[in-house]
Amino acid sequence: MTDRPLEIERKFLLDDLPDLNGVPRVEIRQGYITALQDTTEVRLRQSGEDYFLSIKGGEGLVRTEREVTITAEQFEALWPETAGRRVEKTRCKGRLPGGLAFDLDIYSGVLAPLLTVEVEFSSESAAEAFSPPAWFGKDVTLDKRYRNKALAVMGADALVELMRR
Amino acid sequence: MTDRPLEIERKFLLDDLPDLNGVPRVEIRQGYITALQDTTEVRLRQSGEDYFLSIKGGEGLVRTEREVTITAEQFEALWPETAGRRVEKTRCKGRLPGGLAFDLDIYSGVLAPLLTVEVEFSSESAAEAFSPPAWFGKDVTLDKRYRNKALAVMGADALVELMRR
Repeated sequence: MTDRPLEIERKFLLDDLPDLNGVPRVEIRQGYITALQDTTEVRLRQSGEDYFLSIKGGEGLVRTEREVTITAEQFEALWPETAGRRVEKTRCKGRLPGGLAFDLDIYSGVLAPLLTVEVEFSSESAAEAFSPPAWFGKDVTLDKRYRNKALAVMGADALVELMRR
Repeated sequence: MTDRPLEIERKFLLDDLPDLNGVPRVEIRQGYITALQDTTEVRLRQSGEDYFLSIKGGEGLVRTEREVTITAEQFEALWPETAGRRVEKTRCKGRLPGGLAFDLDIYSGVLAPLLTVEVEFSSESAAEAFSPPAWFGKDVTLDKRYRNKALAVMGADALVELMRR
């Protein structure tokens, strides 16, 4: 069981992949067992060889979050329950020339050919001062449609429409 | 992962415990991670030394059910998320003189001093023909308020009121 710290991140679209030679990759799958409108959120997540079940309960300010490690067998047994509410992607974890870490996500399944990159910052002022490199596309940090939970229930047609804008 | 067969059961209240000498007992805890109004039901269940996570999805006729075995550590890590939606009881598994199996439940926690007994039948006609022994109380087979899910969210006051009737 882990508590996850608040993250300060900015998220951008990418039109094309940069050179990712030597950048480590991990396969990520996450899916929601619960429906979007349910008050409790139960999520399965695979990151490489690690598997997790996490629960977000409550509403508003008193939301709790709990995550437990599960086995590959438990994950595979429960995964069918997430049909229609999944995000599958390859995550490339690299660093920008200035040293900032980025997570570049290459989506697969119905979300292909979506590409996004997230940069994590140590403070809000650092996030605001960030000047994105030329290969970064549109800033979608505040666009809720690009959050994992929204992407999980987005069909291929809706994605194409969204990316056209 | 297991599929569970449909059970034909009748359920009765008990005013007092019968002689349970020699009847095997198992501690049962079950709690709902999801709220009652959520479309998906995620339940934790401990039966003796065995621990399970089960999921009921969908609505109406196409409900699916899936159950996986979990470890004691996983159970304990997730159990706090079931606060306010729990049933805890000691189950005594015995047989009536005619040979029919019964599950007698001695509830604990907020549901004490509730006592119920369930008898399982091989057919609906056998269930209808059943003549309960003298130590059985009120027949609550059709009373939805005594189902596990309803009991799980029932407060002590509501229980006292219900048992008075």
